[in-house]
Formats: sequence, structure tokens, C-alpha cells
Amino acid sequence: MMKTCQDMMKSSELSPGSENVSQNNTRDEENQFEVAHNRSLLITDPVQPCRRTRAVVKEWLLKLRCCLGAACGMEWFAYAALGIFTAILSFLMDLSVTKLLRAHQWLYAKLEGHTSLQFFCWTLYPACLCAVASSFCHNICPSSTGSGIPEVRTMLAGFELPPYLSLTNMFIKFLGLTCSLAAGSTVFLGKVGPFVHISTMVGAYLGKLCTLIQANKEDAAAGQMLVVAAAVGVSSCFGAPVSGVLFSVEVISSHFALKHYCPCFFSAACGALTFRLLSVWSGDMETLRALFKTNFSTDFPFCPLEILLFAVLGVFCGAVSCCYLFCHRWILRFTKTNQIFIKILTTEKALYSSMVAFLLATLTFPKSVGQYMASQLTMRQLLTSLLDNSQWSAPPQNTSLQPLLEWSSPGSPVYLPLAVFLLMKMWMLVLACTLPLPAGYFMPAFIYGAALGRLLGEGVAYVTPGQKWDMRLNPGGYALVGAAAFSGAVTHTLSPALLAVELTGQFSHAVPVLLATLLANGVARARQRPSFYDAISISKALPHLPSLAKACPSLLFTPVGERLRPQSVQLQKAAALQEIQRAVSSSTEAQIPVVDSNESGNLLGFALRSDLLNFLHQKKIESHVKHLDEVCTLFPLPVLLSPAITVQEAFEILTLVGAKTLFVADRGRLVGLITWSELKRIIEELAKEI
Amino acid sequence: MMKTCQDMMKSSELSPGSENVSQNNTRDEENQFEVAHNRSLLITDPVQPCRRTRAVVKEWLLKLRCCLGAACGMEWFAYAALGIFTAILSFLMDLSVTKLLRAHQWLYAKLEGHTSLQFFCWTLYPACLCAVASSFCHNICPSSTGSGIPEVRTMLAGFELPPYLSLTNMFIKFLGLTCSLAAGSTVFLGKVGPFVHISTMVGAYLGKLCTLIQANKEDAAAGQMLVVAAAVGVSSCFGAPVSGVLFSVEVISSHFALKHYCPCFFSAACGALTFRLLSVWSGDMETLRALFKTNFSTDFPFCPLEILLFAVLGVFCGAVSCCYLFCHRWILRFTKTNQIFIKILTTEKALYSSMVAFLLATLTFPKSVGQYMASQLTMRQLLTSLLDNSQWSAPPQNTSLQPLLEWSSPGSPVYLPLAVFLLMKMWMLVLACTLPLPAGYFMPAFIYGAALGRLLGEGVAYVTPGQKWDMRLNPGGYALVGAAAFSGAVTHTLSPALLAVELTGQFSHAVPVLLATLLANGVARARQRPSFYDAISISKALPHLPSLAKACPSLLFTPVGERLRPQSVQLQKAAALQEIQRAVSSSTEAQIPVVDSNESGNLLGFALRSDLLNFLHQKKIESHVKHLDEVCTLFPLPVLLSPAITVQEAFEILTLVGAKTLFVADRGRLVGLITWSELKRIIEELAKEI
Repeated sequence: MMKTCQDMMKSSELSPGSENVSQNNTRDEENQFEVAHNRSLLITDPVQPCRRTRAVVKEWLLKLRCCLGAACGMEWFAYAALGIFTAILSFLMDLSVTKLLRAHQWLYAKLEGHTSLQFFCWTLYPACLCAVASSFCHNICPSSTGSGIPEVRTMLAGFELPPYLSLTNMFIKFLGLTCSLAAGSTVFLGKVGPFVHISTMVGAYLGKLCTLIQANKEDAAAGQMLVVAAAVGVSSCFGAPVSGVLFSVEVISSHFALKHYCPCFFSAACGALTFRLLSVWSGDMETLRALFKTNFSTDFPFCPLEILLFAVLGVFCGAVSCCYLFCHRWILRFTKTNQIFIKILTTEKALYSSMVAFLLATLTFPKSVGQYMASQLTMRQLLTSLLDNSQWSAPPQNTSLQPLLEWSSPGSPVYLPLAVFLLMKMWMLVLACTLPLPAGYFMPAFIYGAALGRLLGEGVAYVTPGQKWDMRLNPGGYALVGAAAFSGAVTHTLSPALLAVELTGQFSHAVPVLLATLLANGVARARQRPSFYDAISISKALPHLPSLAKACPSLLFTPVGERLRPQSVQLQKAAALQEIQRAVSSSTEAQIPVVDSNESGNLLGFALRSDLLNFLHQKKIESHVKHLDEVCTLFPLPVLLSPAITVQEAFEILTLVGAKTLFVADRGRLVGLITWSELKRIIEELAKEI
Repeated sequence: MMKTCQDMMKSSELSPGSENVSQNNTRDEENQFEVAHNRSLLITDPVQPCRRTRAVVKEWLLKLRCCLGAACGMEWFAYAALGIFTAILSFLMDLSVTKLLRAHQWLYAKLEGHTSLQFFCWTLYPACLCAVASSFCHNICPSSTGSGIPEVRTMLAGFELPPYLSLTNMFIKFLGLTCSLAAGSTVFLGKVGPFVHISTMVGAYLGKLCTLIQANKEDAAAGQMLVVAAAVGVSSCFGAPVSGVLFSVEVISSHFALKHYCPCFFSAACGALTFRLLSVWSGDMETLRALFKTNFSTDFPFCPLEILLFAVLGVFCGAVSCCYLFCHRWILRFTKTNQIFIKILTTEKALYSSMVAFLLATLTFPKSVGQYMASQLTMRQLLTSLLDNSQWSAPPQNTSLQPLLEWSSPGSPVYLPLAVFLLMKMWMLVLACTLPLPAGYFMPAFIYGAALGRLLGEGVAYVTPGQKWDMRLNPGGYALVGAAAFSGAVTHTLSPALLAVELTGQFSHAVPVLLATLLANGVARARQRPSFYDAISISKALPHLPSLAKACPSLLFTPVGERLRPQSVQLQKAAALQEIQRAVSSSTEAQIPVVDSNESGNLLGFALRSDLLNFLHQKKIESHVKHLDEVCTLFPLPVLLSPAITVQEAFEILTLVGAKTLFVADRGRLVGLITWSELKRIIEELAKEI
């Protein structure tokens, strides 16, 4: 019964071709017809129990689909659902992380007076959480570790990586990420990357659902849903729709199809709206507001001369990011080559995670080095305190804020905690990147950049005490600029500039933020250096062309003919029945190339495997030779490639044409086929050669 | 001498291939070598006067290029120059328009008491300006009329429209636009569209300059420069970098190449920064600030329930935009079919413009209907007044603003002027679209939308006087949302949402603005309705595929083979000398297809025309038959298309592959060539069939 119903649902929208020309007009009529038809079918079916009730329910469901479908395509409801569902997930995660962090803080405060107990509370809590996250991932779904963005962009480029879209992965990633985030600022990890991955998994499921309802839009809908889901990730994470979409534009490889533009913005807006409304309804906020709302002066945000300082800050952030990325690449190579590391990371992931977390927590213990690096603040408090618009070095006037006290260690200038924070967090962050648990690395970079900016801002405020504009100088602005510039440089993207604006709702600094992010990107991208995500892609040998191009540009100019597997399955025009049988059984491709004769090998076109199967099914008994073009349609080849074409070009044409198979022929003679799986094999081979 | 120097400059950077692999490393050495080489060459040249001085100057220039080139590619300096130059142009235009508007206002005020003289001052001033602009365009450069955006996007899609990039066009467009804008809110025209066109022309010239310096990057640099220039247009116009880039992403057809992303943002940031710095240096502003800065409350920007009202406003704006676009399409058809109109618009453009301007000015005369539609305000004042955050319907507390008085006609409620404004401006705007002068239609739509939003906002404020949140209700927010939604719906873009945020610096309303713009776009785009620019493209029969797709979708699925001109020029593999000569003289294409024999017509590859010319030049005397592959290299075809491929697919593959010629073959037999000019011919033919 289930199958019949699905078939009926599918058949309802089988409009010819992929064009949506005047499809809307005919769709209504089809639906109307189908409702009536379906009811009569169900009522007259003699086998089913409760026929009438089921018929009524089904009728109502189909009517609902008609109503929804009349307003706009079903996919738009799926986009809205994607945004809303991801935002709810994001909100739930924030809620649980806040509770877990508060529990830790409460326990730590209760143990006041017992330093050793406090030490164990401070260190064992994050160590246990990391161990739990790691063992979850290790035992249930090993592909849920890490950021997920490198895998997402590989999938968005068109390659299939099934384990990265499974439902198990989603649950494990969600639980593991909650644990990682609850470990707090000690382990110093973020939420963005895994959340983009989670939203992609949600998108993949909604895409499947959409495909089930709309049978004629299979591939397009599923592919589009993934692109939209990547945009929704960031949007739902911070309630920042525009930067979410721009981030997805930037991570999608080489070409952004404009047909995704409106769906992305629509879904991102739904996600951001839901996320902010949830904050309002939960009582966190009075109305819809930015997540890290700041109170910079809008009348005189900065002096025009400060533009130069912002530019310097951008270049400086770019330089520091190069240093950070170098260390990151080094440690990635080290964990891949050092035998001890390989052994630990393959068998004792939970132990390794807890040991690293314990080490990091020991160093940040507030009664040791931690007091010089504001370690008692959570990630969110850290960012809020760094973006504060009052000058810390100035004599305190009305600074009753708790976070600010954390940064001012007694007797020492304000620069000391900032400098210690920057020096320590650099290597701690690099070490944390080796942890085998779901974790984002964007937010830590954002906060690190904010600290860099703050240091410069406070420095400028200190150096220029007598200037006229000093009184209005706002170190928070420098922190904002630094945050965007550093995180942009680390990820080689510009969208952090807009994210900084959306997170703080502070539009006055938009131009300096953009300028600094551009300069930082310029420094970080010089000499084709790989970005943070590129380094992971290369280390994992993912079939992602742009990162491969950075690691070894010449590889992409390899002619595709050199790497192609020789085509074994082809049919002669005058093929015998046995030949057809052999071809059908030995090939799994949907299109089977047809040549003039096996000797000449001149490519004529292709036959559909399904047509051949049909023919074989019908004519099992007859066995005399027949000409192939009497048996089935011979399709002409829309595009024919030469073996001299490069891997990159072949990839781009495959992406663009939307075909599943491209034929490669050398002066008319068939050389091979390019399919997604073949291309994936070629690129993975290339990646391993680096 | 000039030529020699250019050649030398060109030869300096002729690195092999188009890859920039390790190009940076070799470039410095090459430059160093060239400086020394150039000096010695100049000094030893016996013919030239002032050899030593010229050598020194040239040496310094080349050294400067080395220094600049060491920092980054020369194209980045061109992007910066493009942004800065366009911003200066924009600033100069604003300055002259302000002066001209002030002169008009001063004269009008001086004539107070003489109503008839005031009437003539009010009407003749814009009429004369429009006549001047029209006759300028008509007599010197007819292609400078209108918005320019439809032509720009056609060029960005890859087609060449040389008259639209000429230097004359740029000057005429600049002068004409200044006149149109100086006609003020009477004629109600904007600046965006023509400015995008002007910046594209600037970009084209800078692109040529770049090509001159960097000989090896010809096409890519010029194409990229156009894309960047389109982004810079909006950015320099309003000092709004992000929305400028997004606008250019949205207008570029179907695919946005990510390699343009950073250059676009860089150039747009330079433009926006320059534009704002110029405002600061000219004394208009104290520091860098948004153009239409508002003072909405950021603590409680709006009540969460108001989201629903914003959504309703979005849908309403979408519906009104459909009505406006319908009228616009009707008048475009009318001017193309009505014989009187055709006659006037071909011969008496200046007369027509002045008559229309006179009619519009008569109706907006402040002592007649004009008093009910705030006609004394300039475009800028109109927008500022509509975005004001106080409630007009509330009893005046401290509304000392002059603009607000204009909207409150004595004795009548505030809704009357708004309603009259909306009703009158609708048809006046449609009429103004027929004026044959350089003018933008975006800003009028933006202001119209703001008025729509304001009307709803004031209505809501009036209807809900007793509510708790009424006291904080901000009709300015509705105006902002309405402006973005209406202009977005008219142009079928989402970037106005961001432009609204960037123009006002008001981030608190970002989410409602985006939501309303999305909904308005949804309504406006339903049933494949063409946008404002699409209608112009269709009316002008421009070879722009997406607009063609909206007018008649089935046309794009025409197989390219049906429209292709049969290929007359081809060479046999065993071609005689005469045959080669005939082929070279009868074809202008760079690539000449080579076939097996003229009878079989099997395509083997192509020969370069330049190779053949070289051969003919050398072997003029010999006349015996030779095999072609001994004479020149026979290149394999990277991509071969079938005649069954659609026009749209052929266009996309041509765009992507970056080749200038694609070969179409039916089962190995040559059918024809697809070049940009051939494709342009085909699409223009299709466009005329609508």
C-alpha cells in the first residue's frame, strides 16, 4: 500500500522535461484530478481495512499539498522548514551549553577555599566532557569529528561522501559538539563549522523528503538543498542571515549558481528570524537584537585618520594568521607522520582528548597562569568584554562590569593579560585543533583577532593621551576590526567582515572592518598559501580542487586522458545479443557508448542501459543478430571532450552541464567516460600524490 | 620609439601560459633584468635625442613598476584606481547637482510674491535641463540614454556592445545625468543605473591600460575589470560597498565566478572609502558616516509582533511593484508601436523631453497640486524626511525639521499628502521612464517604496493608540522596509535590502528588511514576470538570455543546430596551397576547422589561422600539394558540441570554457562554429521573434 501511494504521489507531478514552463498552470489541474482519482481508487480497493477513513485522511493531505503547492513550489516550504529546524537545534544547543557551563561555574564557586578541590573541578570537568565527546565519535561515527566544513564544501562541489550525511552522524555531531562547547573557554573551541555540517545533514534529509513529494525534481532539489543548508548553518548559529549566505557563496567552489541565491537568502532569513524570536520568547532578550550588541557611538564612530590604523591592524592580523596557519599545517603533518601520535589517535582517542583537555585546563586554572588571561570568562563573555567600548587603560569611571575586572590583574597594566592571552592561546589553539571531537575553529579565531585588535586599540589610546580625538577613541572598534580581519585571514573569506557587523549590530565600523579584512586576506592569500580549511582538505586527501590547486597547482593541469581508466564497455552498431547482454551486465553506468565498429572505434552516440535491459527482457528467446539502432534509440552526445582537456576543465564542464556522464574521444575514437565517481577517483589519486 | 618602448614593456612580462604558478618569483628577476637591458638599449641607440634623460626617466618608471609589481599584481592597483576614480566622479556629480538645485531653489525663493514668475521658474528650469540632456545624447551619442544596466549586464554576460563602452558615451552620460538629476524631484529620476554604466566605461579603459602593461593577461583582465566596475558603480554612488558587490553578483547572468569576488570587494571598498572621505574633507560630515544616517532606537527597534506587519508590507510592496511594472511594460510597448511616439522619439527628442518635463513640473508646482505632495523637497530630502523616526500623526513635540513641515498640509491629516504623492508619482514615474536621457530608475523606486512603508507605518501608529508598544512605534522603520522591498521587487534583486541598511547605517531593522524584500521578490517574480531591466532588455532586443527566458522560455530550448549558419570555411587534411589561401582569405576566425576530406567531413581538429598565414608567407613560391599536418600543428578540439544542444547550454559552455570558438559536429561531421558573435546573432534573432 505504501508503495502504491508513493507511486501515485510521484506520478502526480511528472511534468515533461526539466523546464518549469507554464508548469504552475497545469499543476493545479493535475492535483485536482489526482485528489478525485485517489479517493475513488482507495474506496474501490477491496483488500484494505478502514478504507473510508484512510481515504478521507489521504484526501485531506493531498488537498493540503494542493493548497501549499498553489502558493509556491513545495521546495520553498522545505527551505523555510530547514531554516526553522536548524535555528531550533542551534537554540537548544546554546541552552544546554549555557546550563552545563553554569553548573561548572556553580560547582567551582561552591568549592571556594579548597584550592585543590577547585583545581580538580576546573580540570576534570572539561577533560571528562572531551573524553565523552571523543569516545562517542570514535565508537559510533568516526566521520563526525572535526569542523566538517572541508567535507561540506567537497560535497557542495558535487562529490558524494555518504558517511558525512548520515543521520547517525548528525546526532553524534550534535551531542559531541554540545560536550565540546560545554568544556568552555578552557578548550577554546567554537560552534560554526560543525553547525554548518549539521545543517547540511538536516538539508540532505529535507531534500530527500522533497524528492519524495516532487518526483520530477530529484537531483536539482537535493543539490540545491545542500547549498541552501550551508548558508543556513551560519545564519542559524548567530542569527546573521547575510553573512551566512556570503559564507556559503565563498566556500562553494569557483562558480556560484545564481538560482541558489534567493533560496539561500530565504532560508537564512527564516533561520535567523526563528533564532532571534526564540531568544525573545525564552526571555533572554526583550526584542529582536544582535547577539553581541555593542554601544559604540554612532555620531563619531572614529576619526578619519584612524582608517590608517585599521589598515595596519588588518595587515598585522594577516601576518599573525600566516604564523597560526603555519603552526596548524605543521601539527597536521606531525600527527600524520609521528608514530606515537598515529598510534594514540587511532586507538586511544578518548584518552588523548582528556589528556589534552587536562593539560589546557591546568594551564588556565584561575589561581595559576589563568589569572593573567581572563580564563574565568566563557567564550561569549570573552567576546563581549573585548568589544566593550570604554578604554580599559583609562581610570575606571563607571566600569561596574564583571568581565572587565577579569582582564585587570591587580598591580599590572591592562596589556599584560592581553599579551599573555595572545601568546598562550596561540599554541593552545593549535593543540586543540588536534582533538578528535566535533569542534569549530572559527569562533576561537574571531575572539583571538578581537584580542589582537583590543591590544592595538588600548596601545593607541595609551600612546595618544593628549590628542583631541583621544577622548573618543574606542578600543572596542579595534577589537571588532581585528576579529573580522583575523578570522577572515585564517579562513580566506571576506564574510567575517559582515558577520562582525551582524553579530554586533554595529554598522558604523563597516567600512574599516571590510578594509582590514581585505588587507588581512591579501597578506594571508599571498603566494597561494592554503587556508585553514584547505590544509585540512589536503591532510585528509579530500577531492576538493581549489585546495589541491593551492598545494600543487601543476597537478590540476594534468590532461584528463592520462588518468582516465580505459573504457572497457562499448557496443558496436551491429552488436549481437550476447554482446548487449555482456555490456549490460559488466557496466553499471546509465549510458553505454556505441561505436561504429570495435576496430575503428568511432563514437556514434550512446544507448540507455534501461532501454537495453527492456529489450533483453522482451526478446529473451530470439538470438539472431540485430542492428542496435533498430533495438533502441541512439542518442547523440551533447558534449564531447578531448583527452587533452585538464582535470579542472573537465570538472567544471561536468558541474555546469549537469550531465552524469561525459564522453572523452580522441579524434572520434572513444577513450573513456568521465562520471562523478571517476572524477572523484582521479582527484583523490592526485591528492595522494602531493 | 613609442612602439619600441611598448613592445619592450610588453615583452617584459610574457611568462609562459596563462597559469600564474610561481610567476611571482620569476617576475622580479625579469623586471630587474629588463631595467638594466632597457637602459643600455636606450643609451646605445644613436638616433634618439635627449637619450640620457629619457633613459633615466624610463628607468625610474620601470623601477616604480617593479616596486608596485613586487607588492601585488598590477591589476590590484587598477582596481583601487577604478574605485577611487569612480568615487571622485560620483562626488563631483553630487556637488554640481547640489549647486544646480540650490540655484533653482534660490531663484524660486527670490521670486516670492510673483506667482506667475515662480511658475515659469519652477517649470522652465527642469524643462530646459531635460532638453539639454536629451539633445546632447541625441546628437552626440544616442546609446547614452536610459539606465544602462540592461546593456551592462549583457556585456557582463560576454557579448560585446562597443558603442556602450566608448569614451564619448562616458562624457555624454556624465553631463546628461548631471542635467537629469539637477531637474530634481520634479522629474524624479535617480543616479544608480547610469553610474553603474559610467563605472563600467571607466573600468573598460582601465582594463585596456592594464592589458597594455601586462601583455599576457589580455582577456581575463578586461573581463574581470568589467565585473568589478559594475560592483563599484553602486558602491561609489552611495558609499555602500557590500550591497554594490551583491548587486553586481545578482545582475551577472546565472553564474558568478568566485575569482571576481575579492577584486569586487576590494575595489568597492576603495570606492566607498574615497566617497566617504571626500564627504569628510569637503566639510559635509565630521567623520565617515552613512549617507542617510537615521537615529532609530537600537534598544527596542521594534516589537516582535511587528514582524507580521513588515511581512504584510513586503507582500503589499510586491503587489504594487507588479502594477508599476505592468504600466512600464505597457508604455514601452506603446512607444514602440504608436506612430506619433515613434516619430517624435526619433526626430524631436529634445522637444519631447522638455514637454514631458514641463507637464510634470506644472503638476508639481507647489502652489497647485504640488503642495499636497511635498514637491519642494529634493530627492535626498524626500528620503530623509520619510525615514524620520518620529510619528507625524502624533502632536508635534520637537519637530523643528523643515522637511516634515512640507508633508503636513494645513488642516488635513498626514495621510493625504502621502496618498496623493503615491497616486501621482506612480504614473509620473512611468511617464518619466520614456524620457530619452541618461537616468536611473532605482532611487525613485526606493523613495516610492519608502512612502508606501511610511503610509502603512503612520496608519498602524494611528490605529493602535492605546497599545503599550505604540509609544515606541517607529514609522521610519516601516519606510525603510518599504523602500527596500519595493525597489527590490521592481528590480528583482535582494541587494536593496542591504543597501537600505548601508544607506542608513541602521542595522537594527536588518532582519525585517530582508524578510520583506524576500516576500516582495516572491510576489514580483511569480509566474516568470520580467523585471524592470528585463522589460527594457526585451524592448531593446538585447542578447540577454535570462530576460529572453522570461519573455518566451521555450525559445531558449531551441537546438543550436537549427540556427547555426552552415560552416563554409574548412580545410581538408590534404589541402592544396590554393585551398589554404582561399580559406585564410575567406575566414576571419582565429581557428580554422580541419576535416578528413570534404566528402566525409569528419572533423579532425583545427589549425590556427596565424600558423597558416605564416606558412603562406614563407612558401609563397612553392605550389605543390602538401599535407596540412606537415605545414602546421593540428590542434585537437577540447570540447565538441552536438547540434542538439540548446542555445542556453551552448552559451554557458562558451562562458565557462573561456574559448573563443566552439565546434559543433553531428556524429563526427562538422556542422558549424559557435563564436561570441555568432551566438549574439542567434540570440538577437530569437529576441526579435518575441
